[in-house]
Amino acid sequence: MSDLVLRFPRAAQSSRIRIAAGGLDRLGAFTRGVTGAGRVVVVSDVRVAALYAPRALASLRRAGIAAELVAVPRGERSKRVATLDRLWAAFAALGLGRRDAVIALGGGVVGDLAGFAAATWLRGVPWVGVPSTLLAQVDSSVGGKTGIDLGAGKNLAGAFHQPRGVLVDPRLLLTLEARELRSGLAEVIKMGMACDARLFAWAERHAGALSRGEPRALEHAVRTSIRVKAAVVRRDEREREGGVRTALNFGHTLGHAIERARGYRGLRHGEAVAIGMRAAAALSVRAAGLEPAARERLERLLDRVGLPRRMPPTPVAALLDAMRSDKKRAPSRDGAGRRGNARGRAQRGRNDTRDTRWVLTPRVGHASVPRSMSGRLVRAALLEAGARD
Amino acid sequence: MSDLVLRFPRAAQSSRIRIAAGGLDRLGAFTRGVTGAGRVVVVSDVRVAALYAPRALASLRRAGIAAELVAVPRGERSKRVATLDRLWAAFAALGLGRRDAVIALGGGVVGDLAGFAAATWLRGVPWVGVPSTLLAQVDSSVGGKTGIDLGAGKNLAGAFHQPRGVLVDPRLLLTLEARELRSGLAEVIKMGMACDARLFAWAERHAGALSRGEPRALEHAVRTSIRVKAAVVRRDEREREGGVRTALNFGHTLGHAIERARGYRGLRHGEAVAIGMRAAAALSVRAAGLEPAARERLERLLDRVGLPRRMPPTPVAALLDAMRSDKKRAPSRDGAGRRGNARGRAQRGRNDTRDTRWVLTPRVGHASVPRSMSGRLVRAALLEAGARD
Repeated sequence: MSDLVLRFPRAAQSSRIRIAAGGLDRLGAFTRGVTGAGRVVVVSDVRVAALYAPRALASLRRAGIAAELVAVPRGERSKRVATLDRLWAAFAALGLGRRDAVIALGGGVVGDLAGFAAATWLRGVPWVGVPSTLLAQVDSSVGGKTGIDLGAGKNLAGAFHQPRGVLVDPRLLLTLEARELRSGLAEVIKMGMACDARLFAWAERHAGALSRGEPRALEHAVRTSIRVKAAVVRRDEREREGGVRTALNFGHTLGHAIERARGYRGLRHGEAVAIGMRAAAALSVRAAGLEPAARERLERLLDRVGLPRRMPPTPVAALLDAMRSDKKRAPSRDGAGRRGNARGRAQRGRNDTRDTRWVLTPRVGHASVPRSMSGRLVRAALLEAGARD
Repeated sequence: MSDLVLRFPRAAQSSRIRIAAGGLDRLGAFTRGVTGAGRVVVVSDVRVAALYAPRALASLRRAGIAAELVAVPRGERSKRVATLDRLWAAFAALGLGRRDAVIALGGGVVGDLAGFAAATWLRGVPWVGVPSTLLAQVDSSVGGKTGIDLGAGKNLAGAFHQPRGVLVDPRLLLTLEARELRSGLAEVIKMGMACDARLFAWAERHAGALSRGEPRALEHAVRTSIRVKAAVVRRDEREREGGVRTALNFGHTLGHAIERARGYRGLRHGEAVAIGMRAAAALSVRAAGLEPAARERLERLLDRVGLPRRMPPTPVAALLDAMRSDKKRAPSRDGAGRRGNARGRAQRGRNDTRDTRWVLTPRVGHASVPRSMSGRLVRAALLEAGARD
């Protein structure tokens, strides 16, 4: 007998991104416009909540929306299943229904966590992002990736769930710590180097203003980076293998590996990505035809905004292991990934010649799809970036 | 300045449903066909795993698919966040990648849990359902609803995630307990009463064979129920308000309320739904023009397959509270739902006249969209169904 095949057409989803200095005070009208919600739960972290939740809640209530705040502890440690469970319980206690909405007021951690809670509450309710860090404004607020970390790795559980709207208020960056600001600038520079030569050249001309956190420069950086990212994500929402979205991983092969090998301590994400971009540029000169002068431009720009050149001493073998068990690919099947034992790692160390995959930049503003790079070339780049044998 | 609006078109998803006696032994080829996976994790419960996992794993391995089994405890208690977390950890340890798949071998609990784990692992991997109970074969395996229970209620966290394929092997029903079988027959009868008069009439003619679990009758019931449900779900995947999928909730307003008010103990889901259908039919006579003879046909059919007439004594107020905080609608906002206190419930008890929403059947094979019913009419129906003041 024949099978029954059910086809489920999917309505297109849309996300409205508004960039407006001082926009936080108009969050209520924005939320009403993109969701129609009569009730929202605002998820934030304790620091951002102390700074901005009163204005957010006041604006929501002025718009006739019942709004409650749930604040989670700061930092990556909140991106875990216990906190997700706490949010679900709060949604239940507050009576959040299918036509209501979740608002994520904070940095990447809050956006990932609250977006995932919205993706899974009652099988999906609308959400609105209000990113409060440069990194979140230029990068993680656009694209619909949500999720939490598990014991086995970062972002392993999650969903693609596009926010109905993202309200980007560059004035929120005025309270950002300098180091957080620099970490965000790494993603702006990445967007330029991998996707948009004009943005890169603009950042070179305004490196001083950017590193001092001047509002007009930041607003331009945010606006342009979002445009660039939106154009990429629109073409490849799900980051298909070989899709254009993989360009956004420039600098992230090594960046994630450093963070992972060091247990996510010490370095900010943007700092690790900066080191990763330098290494990827070195490999690009050797294997993708990037001109040495272009690599020099990248190095100089990263220097000028104060991003680091080298990682703290980290074993090459640990970095290679971390690269191979990155979620971007399936976890390794040969047992060489996180299941590898210490003896195996020690034996491999110096002579590990297995390939890893890198996004390279043949020229400023252009990235290749991820390419396999030989262990020998990669080892040299890692040692140059501060890894040790 | 103008907003940036991102539109994300969505590719249609499809689900292949195969009904084949003895199909379990061809699970490998089926899985390869619908997912292309090279590696799968089979999620099951301990009882079903003992009965059927060896054959499932053998078939998968014959098809060249690396397969590992994860068995969870039996029963609804496995549909919770701790078990979900355990599955994610198992996926990590087994190296389940984006092109791999999850197989749910079991009843509704296993399908909901494993489907939700698949929906959220690496932001979504394919899954295949192999339903082992009549209830799961005719109902929960088709439709893509996945999820877990929270402390605050059933199925509160979840996702719509269509399985790539569902392999329905009616022979798995041969090991089903009689009471489980009857519970599944309630959903077959529901499908007939609410959506398909021919199925209903066929069930009347074969009530004896169905209640004895005769394979040919069961296979026909499964095949027809799936066809009917598929036709409904195809038109209204997300159960929109007023959409046709709400017809599938016939008998469930009260059925869920009974389960909830009694803490999900004592009655099987289908038994509670049978009581709910009887009450909904009584209301349909009074408020939707159902002919008394048609109601009588439903009552008689439910009697013949051995489904209960009345619930164990349960307070009317508890049932009404449970109906109002059903996830099908937003949790109540007036504090009268699960946040209501005991005194409030006691005061309301006898005189509670607030409306509740019911799917009614104006005639056999046809359901209305959910309608508000007056507290007075509902009270009478609840008392008739065994509730007490």
